[in-house]
Amino acid sequence: MNDLTISLDVKSQEPLYEQIYHYIKSEILSGELPFKKRLPSTRKLAEYLQVSRTTVDLAYEQLVSEGYLEAVPYRGYFVCDLEGLYHFETKRPVQALRPVQESVCCTYDFSPSGVDLDSFPGNAWKKLSKEVLQEEDRKLFQLGDPQGEYELRRTIAEYLHQARAVEAEPEQIIVGAGNDFLLLLLCSMFGAGQKIAMESPTYKKAYDVFRNLSNEVRIVEMDESGMRVDLLEQTDAQIAYVMPSHQFPIGLVMPLKRRMQLLAWASSGEGRYIIEDDYDSEFRYKGKPIPALQGFDRAGRVIYIGTFSKSLAPAIRISYLVLPKALLSVYQQRGRIISSTVSRVDQRIIAGFLDQGYFERHLNKMRAVYRSRHDLLLEELKAFRSFCSVSGEHAGVHLLLTFQNGMTEQEAVELAAREGVRVCGLSRYFVGEAAGQPSHTVLLGYATLSEEEICEAVRRLKRAWIP
Amino acid sequence: MNDLTISLDVKSQEPLYEQIYHYIKSEILSGELPFKKRLPSTRKLAEYLQVSRTTVDLAYEQLVSEGYLEAVPYRGYFVCDLEGLYHFETKRPVQALRPVQESVCCTYDFSPSGVDLDSFPGNAWKKLSKEVLQEEDRKLFQLGDPQGEYELRRTIAEYLHQARAVEAEPEQIIVGAGNDFLLLLLCSMFGAGQKIAMESPTYKKAYDVFRNLSNEVRIVEMDESGMRVDLLEQTDAQIAYVMPSHQFPIGLVMPLKRRMQLLAWASSGEGRYIIEDDYDSEFRYKGKPIPALQGFDRAGRVIYIGTFSKSLAPAIRISYLVLPKALLSVYQQRGRIISSTVSRVDQRIIAGFLDQGYFERHLNKMRAVYRSRHDLLLEELKAFRSFCSVSGEHAGVHLLLTFQNGMTEQEAVELAAREGVRVCGLSRYFVGEAAGQPSHTVLLGYATLSEEEICEAVRRLKRAWIP
Repeated sequence: MNDLTISLDVKSQEPLYEQIYHYIKSEILSGELPFKKRLPSTRKLAEYLQVSRTTVDLAYEQLVSEGYLEAVPYRGYFVCDLEGLYHFETKRPVQALRPVQESVCCTYDFSPSGVDLDSFPGNAWKKLSKEVLQEEDRKLFQLGDPQGEYELRRTIAEYLHQARAVEAEPEQIIVGAGNDFLLLLLCSMFGAGQKIAMESPTYKKAYDVFRNLSNEVRIVEMDESGMRVDLLEQTDAQIAYVMPSHQFPIGLVMPLKRRMQLLAWASSGEGRYIIEDDYDSEFRYKGKPIPALQGFDRAGRVIYIGTFSKSLAPAIRISYLVLPKALLSVYQQRGRIISSTVSRVDQRIIAGFLDQGYFERHLNKMRAVYRSRHDLLLEELKAFRSFCSVSGEHAGVHLLLTFQNGMTEQEAVELAAREGVRVCGLSRYFVGEAAGQPSHTVLLGYATLSEEEICEAVRRLKRAWIP
Repeated sequence: MNDLTISLDVKSQEPLYEQIYHYIKSEILSGELPFKKRLPSTRKLAEYLQVSRTTVDLAYEQLVSEGYLEAVPYRGYFVCDLEGLYHFETKRPVQALRPVQESVCCTYDFSPSGVDLDSFPGNAWKKLSKEVLQEEDRKLFQLGDPQGEYELRRTIAEYLHQARAVEAEPEQIIVGAGNDFLLLLLCSMFGAGQKIAMESPTYKKAYDVFRNLSNEVRIVEMDESGMRVDLLEQTDAQIAYVMPSHQFPIGLVMPLKRRMQLLAWASSGEGRYIIEDDYDSEFRYKGKPIPALQGFDRAGRVIYIGTFSKSLAPAIRISYLVLPKALLSVYQQRGRIISSTVSRVDQRIIAGFLDQGYFERHLNKMRAVYRSRHDLLLEELKAFRSFCSVSGEHAGVHLLLTFQNGMTEQEAVELAAREGVRVCGLSRYFVGEAAGQPSHTVLLGYATLSEEEICEAVRRLKRAWIP
């Protein structure tokens, strides 16, 4: 019994049986209790330690289940051969070694990619997360449908119908971990070597994904209505990638007439498709929302992509595709092999978030928050109107400022940085031949700045840009 | 005041301010409270409802923040114009409409893809999940590093070093939502048109992913040591996809000599790489574990893939790549554009799971559970030894049974199904020219069956297969 002089701490957070488990395990690992050594019976050890027999039973069972002890009927518990058992030492690293991920940051950051995380509905998320994990549903940890949970797809279909006039059955929806992944999946469905029309500037990651998978990108010029369909007709493109609700980064909203021309292009050729990226359609501050292109599509040529990254939080990796019915068999053959990329727990949380009205409330709240920042920024930017024009306003969470006094974006970015303000040049979104060409335009994203910060940032921009 | 005859339920789970919020919101939406209508002051409504003024304040603030009410200083609260506000009606679908996902199921399922979910450490998962969400860390919902959280990558590197002798810095690790996604990512990094050597039979999804992205697959014959390197040398393949720890589905463990030959092949040509898929290396029941190929690789030619889907739960969509250092710049240029596919919450949960010793305990427990089922199944299968041979045992969670009495796999599968037992034919994993060819081998996966179920299932197989 001298082997097991365990000092138990009854005040510890750790249950007594765990303390016994850990002690015996460490004795086995250190060799103090060697292979084949017989342990005291649970009755004896319980008496000796002045604990209930159940406590010792629990500890022994744990050790048996993990392969440290063997229970031999009528003879007792014996130490096992440790060969093949896992034992990991955790080495806590020196914190200083951890690389600093955040690059040098300006005090006021107008970069267009953030969202306002102060408004993230953390409590609702925690509540739903707890509820889902309480369900004790074993299915939760089995591999789910590659398309995503049926309940979530139903909920997304309903939301899209009401908010965006998108026509979709749950069967047409594919849930995936972010837009970039869904674009990869689409490429995988279509196969390499597609000819894809894009605007310039555009969402650069989409361009890179297409190119990396050996597709050819045809750049089609934009006018004030968006991608020029007359020029699109002259290319050999079979797929057109557009953002009709709020073109990134230009901020154009494609008018109905151009949308119809685009749909006519798609339906007039075999195998033509439009990829409609509706990434930030949720926020619109003036006039009625324009329904998604997909809702007007009678020929089944629009592939719709939406995301919760922009409306909820970037770290919530849930986006969705709506495939036209004609592509469902292609998905079955070539897309379904990719297992779902979103955990079932997260899928159920977000389904609850939509179904229980949290998403509606969150969107309305964010729309009010962003509109107020949008209006304030527009007002403040009047200080620059003698040499700047504003565009891309009234929707999304960024707008553009174009210098008409000859200042280049590079100068504007550098001057702003000296005052501690980060603005992004438009040119980083140019693709094709235009890539790297200088511009006179900067983007101002206002999602992550409070109203006070917007005022102070514009004050600094005045110092930076007004001679 | 007659407008607001709210009947509050003090016993409800719903807080009083939420009840007031919902009542007023529905009055606004129904038009009972029209645009520009002035609401009673918070003081008056509080008196009328016999609640504290704070309660009414909270309700009004909520309505203001979501755009239903406007607060006009010194004048009070007024109903807003509802244009642009989101309001979703949730239609609960008739449950019967929901498609049944599960196909007709046999009572006893030997399919090789499951894991034992009764042993899933649900309580530890819940505890860690709660802890992570309690952190109140805003960063949790910002977009994270495309490679994955640094802490998780450090933890995985430590685990791989100790369990698999893999040499990896956190900088070499990329976390992604499943092996299929990581293979897509690799394809995207290499670009289309690669020539990839594979065995047949093999992990069919990998074959499909490669082919769908316009790579050419060269099938290289196996012998009793695995992929024949002499035949590999004769192909123009630049990349070889192998599973040295436990070839799927054959169950071969590649001996050290063949591993060395494979490494020699890789290092003897410019730009040659080996993809080592170590999908179920965690479970091995006899002899010492063989370290991963990656650990022997001095030339930096092995791309290692591992997953928590097999060791923990399939619905936990977390896998990881270890890239050789020479490929890090390729990842930076072509891979990093794909945003992380795993939520930061899940990444922190699993990092805690590894760091706090839960994973070690879980692996030891599962190894004991699976070994016991493995030993029992081997014992039970002796009944067939006059006309069957067993292979692929001693590792993983499935083994193979080959009929030497002329019975085809199709016959075996059908006869078993008639007795309510599901077994999988080997032929579904054949690729290339061999695809669709008949075999005499079936797979028996034992991860999801209890010991009692294994005994009963084998009893039924005897009825099915012994004339």
